[in-house]
Parts: sequence; structure tokens; C-alpha cells
Amino acid sequence: MIQTNASKIYNLVGAETVLTEATDLRKYITGISTSFGYVLSDKNGSVFYTDTRYLEGAVKALQGSEISVKKFESLEDILKPYKQIAIPVSKTLYKDYKKLQSFNLEILDSTPAFVSAMSHKEDYELNLIKSACSIADKALVSLLGSIKEGMSENEVAAQLEYLMRKNGASGTSFETIVAFGENSSVPHHETGMRKLKFGDVILIDYGCKYGGYCSDCTRTYLFGDDKKHEDFKKAYASVLQAHNLVKEKVISGMTGSEADAVAREYLKEQGLGQYFTHALGHGIGINVHEFPTLSPKSSDVLLNGMVFSDEPGVYLEGKYGIRIEDSVTLSDDRVLSLTDTDRKLTVL
Amino acid sequence: MIQTNASKIYNLVGAETVLTEATDLRKYITGISTSFGYVLSDKNGSVFYTDTRYLEGAVKALQGSEISVKKFESLEDILKPYKQIAIPVSKTLYKDYKKLQSFNLEILDSTPAFVSAMSHKEDYELNLIKSACSIADKALVSLLGSIKEGMSENEVAAQLEYLMRKNGASGTSFETIVAFGENSSVPHHETGMRKLKFGDVILIDYGCKYGGYCSDCTRTYLFGDDKKHEDFKKAYASVLQAHNLVKEKVISGMTGSEADAVAREYLKEQGLGQYFTHALGHGIGINVHEFPTLSPKSSDVLLNGMVFSDEPGVYLEGKYGIRIEDSVTLSDDRVLSLTDTDRKLTVL
Repeated sequence: MIQTNASKIYNLVGAETVLTEATDLRKYITGISTSFGYVLSDKNGSVFYTDTRYLEGAVKALQGSEISVKKFESLEDILKPYKQIAIPVSKTLYKDYKKLQSFNLEILDSTPAFVSAMSHKEDYELNLIKSACSIADKALVSLLGSIKEGMSENEVAAQLEYLMRKNGASGTSFETIVAFGENSSVPHHETGMRKLKFGDVILIDYGCKYGGYCSDCTRTYLFGDDKKHEDFKKAYASVLQAHNLVKEKVISGMTGSEADAVAREYLKEQGLGQYFTHALGHGIGINVHEFPTLSPKSSDVLLNGMVFSDEPGVYLEGKYGIRIEDSVTLSDDRVLSLTDTDRKLTVL
Repeated sequence: MIQTNASKIYNLVGAETVLTEATDLRKYITGISTSFGYVLSDKNGSVFYTDTRYLEGAVKALQGSEISVKKFESLEDILKPYKQIAIPVSKTLYKDYKKLQSFNLEILDSTPAFVSAMSHKEDYELNLIKSACSIADKALVSLLGSIKEGMSENEVAAQLEYLMRKNGASGTSFETIVAFGENSSVPHHETGMRKLKFGDVILIDYGCKYGGYCSDCTRTYLFGDDKKHEDFKKAYASVLQAHNLVKEKVISGMTGSEADAVAREYLKEQGLGQYFTHALGHGIGINVHEFPTLSPKSSDVLLNGMVFSDEPGVYLEGKYGIRIEDSVTLSDDRVLSLTDTDRKLTVL
């Protein structure tokens, strides 16, 4: 049976009716991936309204579930019975908000209910994320042996994505980043035709989707050791230690800024603070970036059942970049890694 | 030199300042792909504000262009000098609109300027789309020989995506659809582990990105002819004829509904009207779905320089689906195909 969350959200929100259109939230409620549709929940149950492209598939997938499926005709018609509606205001376009206002509806915000429900992963969600991470791990291990001098960043990315797909992924969770040499110093480098040379740093930031849920992992390697990497090796050891300290010290109840500080303070002590130019991490689920945020300014509280990234990094412009990232979960108050590939410095 | 469109949009909009955040519009203006940033244009020029993840890359890419690059600090600060602002209202979230209102700014809509500028492709844009289409064509031709009985839909998708990546694509333009047998009757089937059998219909709807621009193509094949496909073959010939009629008859100045009717009327005459359950086509550019829409209700006017899909299809629930889709452009008043793989019924 497909896992749905319609009544869970309806009960959390507590409005007369709950209307949900945003793609990620719709996927969370219905359990299926679609590019168009509305879920409407009230005290009598939930209906998924969609168009002919998805109707046949949705009816089949949701048979026997708490959600019935109907063809979408008009928003005005389906909202006529109601006086009060909850929508995810943070994800609602101005024009859509104005349209609902024109129907004389009192508008409430369902965002807090979604954030709370989606950030606490149920077992079935954790299992999907674990599967995504394990597919990604397997693909990376198969990839490493086939990386050769002269390959382009694009070729390496293509090979990695193929391996994830072959192992069961439905796609990538974001555009794969493969950065060679000096390109690794650009935190979000656009993968291109730069060719691999002996002595290059290789930074790979990648993830896949399985059952609609994401994995996220980064590894940094040396392609042959040309003995010019003393600074890099020292910095690598520091980033790895920062990454490990987060796993040791972060516990349930900490804020995102407290977790971020664990890595940031250590890198400062090592003289690398100025090169750690981004946040420590972000929540992972149906979206590859979601609640909570682990950054210097975040007051988000980390709780058991949450999944997020632990990804300290340092970037020395024009020279090299290093990032070591696992997808992790908080379980029984401690950090548990869902990513399971080697983190020690590897020379390919 | 990278192609930018900052002053073009500023001049079209005619407001005191133009603020653009939406990812696709930001890509159009700056020529580069980023996941965070704002472009601000006024009579003195344009600035791209972004964060440390993109700063180094953006400075390098936009050197010598009409756009300067600065680190983003606060929206309120950068908007202080202005009384009037244009934003793409159709793509603006309610919360962002309210925030701008709280700065006491008069808000105008930049959407019409973007729709007009982006739907008319310049030569450099057409060349990028042509490259994307040609990469996709090459990949499909290489794929066909390697399709074997027992392969899963996922494996075929993985292979196709790998071939596109290897040929220079930066990624897919949407989640690749590979549907075997009865799955082909679901227009937006979710690619899965269904294995290929002798006599199956194979429907492949796929596209890639090159330089930030999309291709979109669908082909339908028979995997071995088990002599049970008389209906399918008749329907295939009708869909192909509908597809070809669009190419013959659509001219500059027609509306989207007139273009749609060319295919729809023909399929009705063939007794297949009720099975053509979606629109004939959609604009293609930085987004795989953009202006114009070719559907029964669309008043969008098709003009020279536009790129859109020609994709009639019929779906017989539980039996089979057929869709034949090319990316095409209007040039010198006539339809010119950018997709160049075989459309005649092919038995693999």
C-alpha cells in the first residue's frame, strides 16, 4: 500500500479545509510524483484533483488509500462549500493567493504543519532515504575504478549518473557537480569539459532520488600525488576532523547554529575559518534542501528523526576546494550516518 | 563573451528599476546558471547580487559584460534608492511581494517583457537549442541498437541519459520517461522496473540541456512484431500524419488553438479524437514548458523565432500509447524541425 499523509496534515493544520498544490507537498501527501494537481482535505476525507496525464496512474496508485482521485475542473467549484482554507503561504505565488482571496475565503497558513511533519521522518521515509544513499554509495564505489586521466568532468558525471540509474535511482537529486583541479575552489562549480590531469584534486557532489526521496554526498580525492599537496593534505585532515566532530557532538535539542559552530569553531582554530564560506548543512527529504538549516544564524531545533547534511568545506580561490559531506539522521539523540563510503584521504 | 539580456529587459520593461530573482529569468538575463541571486537594473546599468557559492564563478563569467557582480547583503539596502520597481509578478511568491510592499515601493509587472523577449529566440539561443536537440538525436540513435529483451525501463533511461551526458549535455531537461507495453498508455508514466518483452510498445519521452537550453522529443517503437498490432499500426500512421500536418500547415500568425486544431481535427476524422487527451504542444527554451501554449483554449500567437513542441498522441487505457514529438521552430513563416531522428514506424 502506498504511504499517504493526507489526514495527518489535515489534523495538524486544524482548518476547515486544507488545499495543497506545491509539487513537493503534493508528493508528501499523496505518495506519488506528479507535475500537476491539488489535494483537498476536509472532515470527510481527501480528494486528489489532477488532469488526464496523471489520472489513470493516480487512480491505480491510490486505490484503497485514504485519498480518492477526481479530474480537476475548476478551483472555484471545488472551494465553493468552504469559508476557511489553509494553504502553504510560504510556497504560494502572489497571483494564486489573490485568486483565493477573491473567493472570499479566510486564508490560514499550513506551512508550519508541513515543516513539522516532513522534517520528522517516519520509518518508511527513512528507509527510502537510506535506499537513495545506498544506491549513491554503490555508484561512487563502482565509479572510482574507472576514473582515468583525460576524462572530462562531464564524462565522470555521466558515468556516475548512469551507475545510480542502473542501481534503481529515478534520477539525480540535483545537478551533479564534478570539479577538477582549481575548479574545486568554486563551491558550486558548473560541471564542464575540463579534462583530468595527474595531480588534480577531484571534488564530486552528487545525489540521487529513490521513491521520491533524496540522497546528498560530497567526496574530495587526489588524482595521483604529485607531491605538491602538503597544504591540501593538512586542510583535508582539518575538514575531516570538523565533519567527524559534528557527528560526535551534535545531539537532539541543539539549534542549527550550535551544530554549525561545532565545525566552524574547529576550522577557525586551524586557521581555516575564513575559507569555510557556506553553511554546515541542510535538511534532506523529498527536497534536497529543506528544514532544518544548520548555519551560523539558524535557530531551527534539531530533533530525533530529522535527516540533514554534515558538510563542512574550505575553498582557496584558484587553488583547491575540499568538502566532505554525508547525509545523516538524528536517532536516539545521536548522529547516525546514512552515507557509508570512505572519508579518509584517498589518492586515486 | 557570454550573452546577457539585462539592458534588453530593462528597456522593454520601462520601470525605474527591474529586480529579477526567478531562476529561469535570472539565467536568461545573466547567461549563467545559479541557484541564488538577484539582478537589479536601472538607468546606470545592472548588478548581479549573489552569495559566496557563486561569486567567484560569476565574476569570471561576467567579466567585460554589461553586468557587474556584488555580494548579496540585504534586499532592503539595495532597493533604498528607488520608488518604483518591476518584478515578474506571475513568478513571485506572496511573501516576497508583501516584503517589497513593506518597503513602500510601487510594484509593476515585468512578466510581459520576459514572455515577449524569451519566446522570440535570438540566434545564439536557437543555436543552443539546436545543439541540445542534436545531442539528444545522437544519443537516441546510439541507444536503439543496445535495447534488449529483459532490460528494465530504468536501465534504458539510464543508458539514454548517459549517452546525452557523454555527448556534452549538462543534464536532462525533465525526468526521462521510458514506458514499455501497457505502461505507454499513461501519458506521464513514471519510469520503473518493468522489463521489456517481445512485442512490447516502447515509448520514450526525453530531453537534455545544453548551455542552459532544453530539447524535447518523443518516439514510439515496437520491440519485435508479434503480429498483434494491427490497431496500433493504424493509430501510429494517424498520429504521424497529425504530426506532419502541423508541420505543413502551421504558419506565423496562427494562434495556439488554431495550431492545436490542425492535429485534433485530423485525429477526430480518424476516430481517435477522444484518445488525444493532452495539448498539442508548448514553448521550449530555458524552460522545457514555457510560452506559447498550443492547446484548444490558447490564444497565444505563434511567431517567427519561437520554439515549441509538435506532439500529438493517443492513449488507449491499459493497451498502448503513441506520441510523436519534435522540437520545432517557426522560421520564415514555416515550421522547421530541430529534431531529426526517424519518425516512421520502426520495429526494433
